[in-house]
Amino acid sequence: MHAITLPEFGEPEVMRWAEQQDPQPGRGQVLIDVVATAVNRADLLQRQGLYAPPPGATEIPGLECSGVIAELGEGVTDWHVGDRVCALLSGGGYAEQVVVPDTQLLTIPEGLDLHVAAALPEVACTVWSNVVMDAKLRAGQLFLVHGGGSGIGTHAIQVATALGATVAVTAGSAYKLERCNELGATVLVNYREDDFVAAVREHNGRGADVILDNMGAAYLDRNVDALAPDGQLIVIGMQGGVKAELNLGKLLPKRGTVRAAALRARPERGRSSKADIVAAVQEQVWPMIADGRVRPIVHAELPITDAAQAHRLLDSDETVGKVVLRVR
Amino acid sequence: MHAITLPEFGEPEVMRWAEQQDPQPGRGQVLIDVVATAVNRADLLQRQGLYAPPPGATEIPGLECSGVIAELGEGVTDWHVGDRVCALLSGGGYAEQVVVPDTQLLTIPEGLDLHVAAALPEVACTVWSNVVMDAKLRAGQLFLVHGGGSGIGTHAIQVATALGATVAVTAGSAYKLERCNELGATVLVNYREDDFVAAVREHNGRGADVILDNMGAAYLDRNVDALAPDGQLIVIGMQGGVKAELNLGKLLPKRGTVRAAALRARPERGRSSKADIVAAVQEQVWPMIADGRVRPIVHAELPITDAAQAHRLLDSDETVGKVVLRVR
Repeated sequence: MHAITLPEFGEPEVMRWAEQQDPQPGRGQVLIDVVATAVNRADLLQRQGLYAPPPGATEIPGLECSGVIAELGEGVTDWHVGDRVCALLSGGGYAEQVVVPDTQLLTIPEGLDLHVAAALPEVACTVWSNVVMDAKLRAGQLFLVHGGGSGIGTHAIQVATALGATVAVTAGSAYKLERCNELGATVLVNYREDDFVAAVREHNGRGADVILDNMGAAYLDRNVDALAPDGQLIVIGMQGGVKAELNLGKLLPKRGTVRAAALRARPERGRSSKADIVAAVQEQVWPMIADGRVRPIVHAELPITDAAQAHRLLDSDETVGKVVLRVR
Repeated sequence: MHAITLPEFGEPEVMRWAEQQDPQPGRGQVLIDVVATAVNRADLLQRQGLYAPPPGATEIPGLECSGVIAELGEGVTDWHVGDRVCALLSGGGYAEQVVVPDTQLLTIPEGLDLHVAAALPEVACTVWSNVVMDAKLRAGQLFLVHGGGSGIGTHAIQVATALGATVAVTAGSAYKLERCNELGATVLVNYREDDFVAAVREHNGRGADVILDNMGAAYLDRNVDALAPDGQLIVIGMQGGVKAELNLGKLLPKRGTVRAAALRARPERGRSSKADIVAAVQEQVWPMIADGRVRPIVHAELPITDAAQAHRLLDSDETVGKVVLRVR
């Protein structure tokens, strides 16, 4: 098969579409003929040598895909050759074929294009695990998501709105904020002009009950300021750096929580596992997609051989939603 | 009535046992004839002017007491004049009488001395709310509590042991560690000589699932290092300062949580309230005391007129367990 390889780390151009050994499904795994994959920030970091795949994972980038099951490994009984699926991967999506544990497979939501489905597993699993399973966002609460125009952001806005929460977003342009508003966000903060702490406090007099953050260090102190009593800050990205001062004196009187979590490093099975998250997403999020409450937002779809351009596009901060890579 | 007053902030000697207006129980409150109260770190801070009582609370120190109900406010139906009780207070325990919402009353555990019961409400409510209700410590997990010889420490060791957790402690002397060991702790770290991060990692190869911390800034980075995957750090005191660098890059791969919480600032009713915590303690912790799995550990009992000496004693770091102040 062909796959994107990284003969060296660096700029987008280092990626090569090259012949690779065909993967073989082991026990409990399936082989997927990949139809499409999608770009994540982690792919850009991996390409630069800043984010090594977890132990045992392939070096081929790509954390999600859609496709058709081509072969079943031993012990797989719930799926069949020919099933149309999408999947949460620990790597290997930028390829014609990939193997994945059957516990990380999802059906294609009714009525959804198979290529578009490649844009769903990462955002759906990240948002559901952090915002709902862990932080337990519920109706009536105020949810703040930074980078409202990102793949995560556009999905999180819709899921939180479907749950009955009020959604606040930050984004860097009026255009992005408009798009966030169309998806359900009502508290709109252009971070180039306005202070999100003041905005969420003004909205309800208390602050945000749950914050989903991709900025890490750069926003840590202001995120703590923006938390409501019993509020929870969940850091899933560190685009603004890794280390920052935490003022426990601000956190303590309001019983604030700071949590950081990466989906890719989770175990396959057991507590907090990918298997648990995928099962919950299939059961709880897929119906929201089937009935139209949550739509996959795709900014662009490019052929996999244009992966470099796709990376530059994501890096430009001009996208709204996901960038999909077409393999077939 | 008489009560401890703070005509000025400063050294223990500023405290005065002086005539004060008798408190009157409002709706949903009871008046208690105080038999004993107990000393908390927060009292020492309040005496120094470093910890103001929450809005609406009395200026008289004292976060817990035991005694006898002297009068019922309107609408109190579950308690009677003459009932022997202990209570979680937002202040006012260093006095002959105190008023408290009836939702913050606890019965006296069977067979327990009424004076000793004054040592229970703060430690029981703090440990249960943070370690069990929030962090959900369970059998088989590794629990680390700093200051194992403190009132909180001696109680937390016993509760965690009763739940089936393995308990690690830090303390500053071999004597204190021996006492912690008698109460159930099996991983014993003298913080003057040994590194608790290495100790918990060596114990199970993963680290601590739940850490209860009173040191704040001084231990933040090492506490993060000591966390197991999905581990939770709960900061309830800031004896080692308020601000410290948090390395999100360490927290993220293991999905770590940093939480800080103060009991005194919690709302009386509703979510995360004192009422909820007190009800849970009555239901879950009191049976552990009645059957001897958890014993109140009292280092010394002094007359309330020796409050200054009691404060110096707690401040000496030589105590194991609580210091009780006898009012009657």
